[in-house]
Amino acid sequence: MLSKNQIKLINRLGQKKFRFKDGFFVVEGIKTINELLQSHFELHQLYTTESFNIDAKTENLISETDLKRISFLKTPNKALAVFKIPEPKPVDSKYLILALDDVRDPGNLGTIIRLCDWFGIKDLVCSKQTVDCYNPKVLQATMGSISRVNINYVDLDAFLKEAQKPVFGAFMDGENVYNRALSKEGILVMGNEANGISKTIEARVTKRLAIPRFGDLQATESLNVATATAVLLSEFKRGTRR
Amino acid sequence: MLSKNQIKLINRLGQKKFRFKDGFFVVEGIKTINELLQSHFELHQLYTTESFNIDAKTENLISETDLKRISFLKTPNKALAVFKIPEPKPVDSKYLILALDDVRDPGNLGTIIRLCDWFGIKDLVCSKQTVDCYNPKVLQATMGSISRVNINYVDLDAFLKEAQKPVFGAFMDGENVYNRALSKEGILVMGNEANGISKTIEARVTKRLAIPRFGDLQATESLNVATATAVLLSEFKRGTRR
Repeated sequence: MLSKNQIKLINRLGQKKFRFKDGFFVVEGIKTINELLQSHFELHQLYTTESFNIDAKTENLISETDLKRISFLKTPNKALAVFKIPEPKPVDSKYLILALDDVRDPGNLGTIIRLCDWFGIKDLVCSKQTVDCYNPKVLQATMGSISRVNINYVDLDAFLKEAQKPVFGAFMDGENVYNRALSKEGILVMGNEANGISKTIEARVTKRLAIPRFGDLQATESLNVATATAVLLSEFKRGTRR
Repeated sequence: MLSKNQIKLINRLGQKKFRFKDGFFVVEGIKTINELLQSHFELHQLYTTESFNIDAKTENLISETDLKRISFLKTPNKALAVFKIPEPKPVDSKYLILALDDVRDPGNLGTIIRLCDWFGIKDLVCSKQTVDCYNPKVLQATMGSISRVNINYVDLDAFLKEAQKPVFGAFMDGENVYNRALSKEGILVMGNEANGISKTIEARVTKRLAIPRFGDLQATESLNVATATAVLLSEFKRGTRR
């Protein structure tokens, strides 16, 4: 059974300002919840139609009707969990870091977090205007990868100003990424969906890269930020493992 | 002004069966419509709040209220066009061909069409169960690239059976794609979002490829089909242009 207060808390967590204020976020689906239960993420409350056999204080067995009342999904997937938002660790600049300059689409951010996990990128640094990584739509797209990537929201200009490492950015007029040797450390900056990397951040970029276009002249103007990130992370990593 | 028949035709075109029956599809937004007007696609009717200065017989100036009545978007973007579905050209097997085995998500197909355009893949071959490329959500994601990629829906098993070229497929246990020389011709098969490449199609694959995982053991299980396609097309193409 659900109390009014429980329903109210979960509803609030659909909004970024309340997630920050309350320090909790919502995740749905048995598979993703199980992944997070096995991570360093701390469970606050679990609402489920089938028992996970965990601590009775945090597990609430509820009906499908009740799950529908609290779910953010059109088709709820058996369980909804409220986790504590973890304190991010400091950024480790020994390895390649991915930085996002105002990526706004939740699906893109979720896909990028999953790419970080796949390519072993430990640190993702986001500008304050980048979509919140605890947004339910982002979490849907990460498929549990969120627990394996350390995400910091920072003043990106100040962060890059302090950086002691090369700052890479993708631009149409950059150097062909297939032709140059890429370092194992540094910061790769990806820009906003509509506007790319902003002027302020562009001034901090020390190495301009481009993914060459192979089609005809009249071809597509740009790659989607998530697919461009996939190509660039692949290029940075392909030489490091044989 | 809109007639009842016009509204009815446009509404029908939201469904695949009527698109096939009527031979038309709907595209929205000034930019994409302009791109298609400059392509070999044939305009049937244009409904717009601002004149495109084209043939008066096909251009219908309408109010924003009327546009809202026919648009498939939450926020209509000034114009909606009905184009004829073109007859696809035969597949040209001199170059690398991308084949999709039951890709179901419209956003993924749209992103993949855009990737084909970027990487100069002229032919995209889709299994009959792959989402229809004239689905409005696919068209939203292609950003006009649809006019520059030749798309055939085929019996994929029969198509691959007849193929005279190597058939590549991505599998977890395939050969590290970064380590092997890739040919300029052949067919690269990408699988369904949930199930990957089906058993029937797997039997037609002659070269099994894998994108290696760089993260920890507990890392993400798989890449999204669109990002995996981005990495593989980049690998096939990176050596062909210096």
